[in-house]
Amino acid sequence: MNDSAPSAPLDDVPALLAALTREEKVDLLDGSDFWRTRAVPRLGVGRVVLSDGPHGLRSQPEDADHLGLLGATPSVAYPVAAATACSWDVDLLRRLGEALGAEARALGVSVVLGPGVNMKRSPLCGRNFEYLSEDPLLAGELGAALVHGVQSRGVGTSVKHFAANNQETARMSVSAEVDERTLREIYLPAFERVVTGARPWTVMCAYNRVNGEFASQHRWLLTEVLRDEWGFDGVVVSDWGAVYDRDEALAAGLDLEMPSSGGVGRDAVLAALDAGTLDEADVDRAAARVLELVAKARPALGPGQSYDEEAHHALAREAAAASAVLLKNDGVLPLDPAGDVPLAVIGEFARTPRFQGGGSSKVTPTRVEDALTALRARAGRGVRFAPGFTPDGSGDAAALLDEAVATARGAVAVVFLGLPDEWESEGYDRTHLGLPPEQVAVLEAVAGAAERVVVVLSNGGVVEVAAWQHHADALLEVWLPGQAGGGAVADLLLGAVNPSGKLAETVPVALADNPTVGNFPGEHDVVRYGEGLLIGYRWYDAHALPVAYPFGHGLSYTSFDYRDLEVEAEGNTARVSLTVTNTGERRGAEVVQLYVADPESSVFRPERELKAFAKVDLAPGESARVDLALDSRAFACWHTALRRWVVEPGAFAVEVGASSRDLRLRAVLELPGEAVVPPLSADSTAEQWLAHPWAAGRLREVVAGTGTDAMLTDPEAGRMVRAIPLRRLARFPGSPLDERWLEETAAAANSR
Amino acid sequence: MNDSAPSAPLDDVPALLAALTREEKVDLLDGSDFWRTRAVPRLGVGRVVLSDGPHGLRSQPEDADHLGLLGATPSVAYPVAAATACSWDVDLLRRLGEALGAEARALGVSVVLGPGVNMKRSPLCGRNFEYLSEDPLLAGELGAALVHGVQSRGVGTSVKHFAANNQETARMSVSAEVDERTLREIYLPAFERVVTGARPWTVMCAYNRVNGEFASQHRWLLTEVLRDEWGFDGVVVSDWGAVYDRDEALAAGLDLEMPSSGGVGRDAVLAALDAGTLDEADVDRAAARVLELVAKARPALGPGQSYDEEAHHALAREAAAASAVLLKNDGVLPLDPAGDVPLAVIGEFARTPRFQGGGSSKVTPTRVEDALTALRARAGRGVRFAPGFTPDGSGDAAALLDEAVATARGAVAVVFLGLPDEWESEGYDRTHLGLPPEQVAVLEAVAGAAERVVVVLSNGGVVEVAAWQHHADALLEVWLPGQAGGGAVADLLLGAVNPSGKLAETVPVALADNPTVGNFPGEHDVVRYGEGLLIGYRWYDAHALPVAYPFGHGLSYTSFDYRDLEVEAEGNTARVSLTVTNTGERRGAEVVQLYVADPESSVFRPERELKAFAKVDLAPGESARVDLALDSRAFACWHTALRRWVVEPGAFAVEVGASSRDLRLRAVLELPGEAVVPPLSADSTAEQWLAHPWAAGRLREVVAGTGTDAMLTDPEAGRMVRAIPLRRLARFPGSPLDERWLEETAAAANSR
Repeated sequence: MNDSAPSAPLDDVPALLAALTREEKVDLLDGSDFWRTRAVPRLGVGRVVLSDGPHGLRSQPEDADHLGLLGATPSVAYPVAAATACSWDVDLLRRLGEALGAEARALGVSVVLGPGVNMKRSPLCGRNFEYLSEDPLLAGELGAALVHGVQSRGVGTSVKHFAANNQETARMSVSAEVDERTLREIYLPAFERVVTGARPWTVMCAYNRVNGEFASQHRWLLTEVLRDEWGFDGVVVSDWGAVYDRDEALAAGLDLEMPSSGGVGRDAVLAALDAGTLDEADVDRAAARVLELVAKARPALGPGQSYDEEAHHALAREAAAASAVLLKNDGVLPLDPAGDVPLAVIGEFARTPRFQGGGSSKVTPTRVEDALTALRARAGRGVRFAPGFTPDGSGDAAALLDEAVATARGAVAVVFLGLPDEWESEGYDRTHLGLPPEQVAVLEAVAGAAERVVVVLSNGGVVEVAAWQHHADALLEVWLPGQAGGGAVADLLLGAVNPSGKLAETVPVALADNPTVGNFPGEHDVVRYGEGLLIGYRWYDAHALPVAYPFGHGLSYTSFDYRDLEVEAEGNTARVSLTVTNTGERRGAEVVQLYVADPESSVFRPERELKAFAKVDLAPGESARVDLALDSRAFACWHTALRRWVVEPGAFAVEVGASSRDLRLRAVLELPGEAVVPPLSADSTAEQWLAHPWAAGRLREVVAGTGTDAMLTDPEAGRMVRAIPLRRLARFPGSPLDERWLEETAAAANSR
Repeated sequence: MNDSAPSAPLDDVPALLAALTREEKVDLLDGSDFWRTRAVPRLGVGRVVLSDGPHGLRSQPEDADHLGLLGATPSVAYPVAAATACSWDVDLLRRLGEALGAEARALGVSVVLGPGVNMKRSPLCGRNFEYLSEDPLLAGELGAALVHGVQSRGVGTSVKHFAANNQETARMSVSAEVDERTLREIYLPAFERVVTGARPWTVMCAYNRVNGEFASQHRWLLTEVLRDEWGFDGVVVSDWGAVYDRDEALAAGLDLEMPSSGGVGRDAVLAALDAGTLDEADVDRAAARVLELVAKARPALGPGQSYDEEAHHALAREAAAASAVLLKNDGVLPLDPAGDVPLAVIGEFARTPRFQGGGSSKVTPTRVEDALTALRARAGRGVRFAPGFTPDGSGDAAALLDEAVATARGAVAVVFLGLPDEWESEGYDRTHLGLPPEQVAVLEAVAGAAERVVVVLSNGGVVEVAAWQHHADALLEVWLPGQAGGGAVADLLLGAVNPSGKLAETVPVALADNPTVGNFPGEHDVVRYGEGLLIGYRWYDAHALPVAYPFGHGLSYTSFDYRDLEVEAEGNTARVSLTVTNTGERRGAEVVQLYVADPESSVFRPERELKAFAKVDLAPGESARVDLALDSRAFACWHTALRRWVVEPGAFAVEVGASSRDLRLRAVLELPGEAVVPPLSADSTAEQWLAHPWAAGRLREVVAGTGTDAMLTDPEAGRMVRAIPLRRLARFPGSPLDERWLEETAAAANSR
């Protein structure tokens, strides 16, 4: 063979595989450096470049720092996932994906490392800004749309971090202790939706352990669930540095270790092959997947590709505007650009925007638009400014405050508050949900001087608002809105864009209300997911707790009416339709949210769960009929004994509204479901036996006239006795029951 | 040998053991019937009679029903544990134990099956009335006092149900999934206190599983913790019917199976001995313990023993009065026996008291005193009566209500409300915390007609009061007060006794507030103790939730002042003293409660925890100096990595008050504690290495001047990088670190 002439066509993976030596195959399973897979020059197999990240590319030059954290080629910084999720707009996410794909091609990147669809279990998680939602359906739908968009450009994605990576503290060692039903209903469905619905080229495993086993070598996750159940056929790539035992990881289903382990991984695999503890078929399978990835990436590669930076910046601005959530508005918004009252912009963030979070997702933006400049360019009156504070709390706080008050006096004050950069990052978690106290002090002082106060919030994770929001006549949450956030904020404040974002996560009244108190971030490398299914709104609803702003909440400059709900069940699915009307004076978009409740269930279920949504854009007075489809999963729960999805027979409620706590329409439907007849055993209780259509009669025959019969039917003690397993009753002195009879009768009952 | 002549002295257990055949020894490990162990007549070894229960004997004649639930010889029904716990009176509990011991002797009973020191994890648990508290210290102290009392009479006890038996639903199959720290700090300490402090003759294992293994064959619980750590040397007896695999149970440390298994247990043990899977030493050890129990029981046995039923009834009345908690009082109480306004007693429970709960603890009382008769005998004015409702909801509700309103018009109404018998029992749990709606309706209607309203509540587990308590000018919680409750209630209402009870459990505003929402009673035989340490007041405090009445709350007809707190630390212990003064006009008793808080801890800790208490009886104007001792356990937490108790160095707060939310005095003390230096490994994070006094320098030398150094100290990314395990950093491309060096240096650091 000749090193420069490929012996097999580059898309004939079996032929390539056959041409590779064992060592070459093993080499393919390890990165060649921080961002690239290994080439096999003699066969013409090229490298694939992978790059952070989910809301903008962080493509590093080849001479980057060896940890891959500093310095990157400029790219468009789009709003973070915490923001774009609030658009509830699958079309927008798809277009963002298309833009990311185009930028990736221009930079020679073949796999974009995102989206992140981990659940926001605690509002303290430092990386929440990179994640979409506390709700698996919303995160899954939006994540799938982004993947569709990127991959439509011939560039791959890596949905991450699989799985149960919901905190930064001790993220490389902590074990998430979480039961299967909670995994199935809360932590896995967003991955499932992306994998089954959008077929990402790769899945990135998490750093953490799940029930004791590292996600990077968790066979149940990486093979049984991901591949066998969901049909994933792409590459599982490690989070950067997540591999522990390379040979066990490979056997468990992890194909590609990134970054290069410097030979450690290769040596472990080769040693395990030699020792016979690893099967060469595992190597072949993983190498084939990497070769397939290389083949898939090739068509989009090539020099001279570029993208329209101006158009992408405009998209970033559109996305930022669609992602902002108008939490509160007494009518002060939108501001009249030509109003008489002077406008005072307060807060350093208006001039120096906080537009993205820290860590591996940090983009070097092509440019940054600030709100102060945008407002000055657009408002038809003088716009005063005072920084009010410094984000890091340095400087003369008293002087800054005095200046802010003087600036705001008699004006409509737009106060830009937010979290400092170093408070939110990959790598560590917050310990409280407060704003810096000097910012709150400025707001309070400004509120005493200004005519009206509008607060604009920049933060990647939610903050407590209860202590200060009464000072604000309006409150606009813009999250970390990306490089074009400044213009978007001006568009929203001045009414050029009508806010349409809805919260993708609950804003609690206080940290103490949240479900993970005492269970976050765990201790001694263990974190118990004690709240089970009850994260986010599921928790606040189950505990009937007040919240500052509920999941799904968001105001508009217009209003919407909901009516004419129709629900049609077919089997265990349903079609739902309703009419939404724009009853206000402005064009606007409404996010119609459908929640399903199962009021009577054999197991605990959340009060209601989001199962469908749609965003509709309506002119004033315009109506639209909204159709929503519910498949059987919308009603099912994970049966922990049968280990599969089950729809229980009976009534379900469909609730439609403008937020999880602003439900406008409700209908009840009956589904046939599946009557699960639990198998009997000698250890089943008398009650379970007596509920069995056939065995009940047999039992009654045997006990008839005995003391056991008297006890089972005793008006006082009977209920207690019927809760005793029959095997125990059989052993009690004088019992007419016999263990062998119980076992035989149970077997007969189960085989009927 | 001769069957009728013992070959060894009856207290020479080794000699007896040597004289027994293998089959005889195995026979000793099984009951002979429902309530008795097996005799060995040829050696003169007699039977031991065991009997329910914790608040009154339920001694059954030999011809009782074969499940042991119906019919018993009359005994005094004392207040249930849920009541007596509210006395916070160790002396009272000891005297109750002495009385139980005397009654047991009179009935030939050698082991009283109690006390129950399980924690009240959920207010729904049907058996909460049999348990003392939601706080392990309070339950342990009171349980130990009861054991001391009973055993001072030569009669044994059986502290139960060991362990984590905190619900009735599926109690014979459910697995309590609970981590070790939670077990050590919440679910085990009451048992530990009783075992180490009062040396009960027996411990009763629970029905349920703990982390998958049946408590009846849980070696860690029954042998490692109970015997090896706590030094228990008595008999472990099964809860009735709790044995699953008799041979495995025996090996795990369960000595005595009760009731008789009809030979099933014996056969299993003999088969296992034959198969060699069970060691005969296990049989010998358990048989020896049963023989020791028989020997311990003998001195107190003998005919002609009796007790003073009148004195015991009086003790029951004293206990009922000491156990009642005056939750609310606007001054209407105490009632003036000679007042002008007529007294209207409303509610069937005044005539037909609800005085005990259902299940195995149900006593056949020697007599029952009702409050109506007692009030009529004592009040100096006419006492009207209307039943208002029937406990089971039968009858003409409207007519009963009308009669009640007519009876109450213009009177001071004392309304007796409570839970119906069948709502609270061993064997099943409640599903809500409400009173029957017809009772609430009567209260509302009566409140509209009466001059003033006093509500007397009878219930074994707490009920929600928020919806109706505004109708009550006073609210007296008497629990299930035993057969003399009627007289005690009259004593309290009329001021002959000053209320001094304090809540041993929180009364939540609503069930939805409680820590087990979604985690009780579990599903498919698994219940997750997701709230961890946060049961009871620990939960409400951690979540800053309002409660109806906090743990430790209880009013008096007088008032108390707290002052002059002194705290003196010595090593990791402390002596606390303070002065309490009766500042009112009546003699009264106050429960002084001491809570410890650890505001700065390396692990999550509850806001505050009860660590000492004392009850002081004071004449008007009288003061007393109260001394309280805190051992190191009062400050320690269970270290889940080291698996032992650790007191962390630093500040602790001592808070003293009249309830968990009425803290009057506070002091901070500094304890030396124990500075745990966590061992390093190659997988420790850079941060952990840099915190090590010796290894930090070695690490700095190796990375000096490299890119890794730059990353570790980078002002922006450094914090994230320092959270990465060094082994992972070592594998990153270009790292100056080496895995072998890390391992060797960690070993060197750990061995210094």
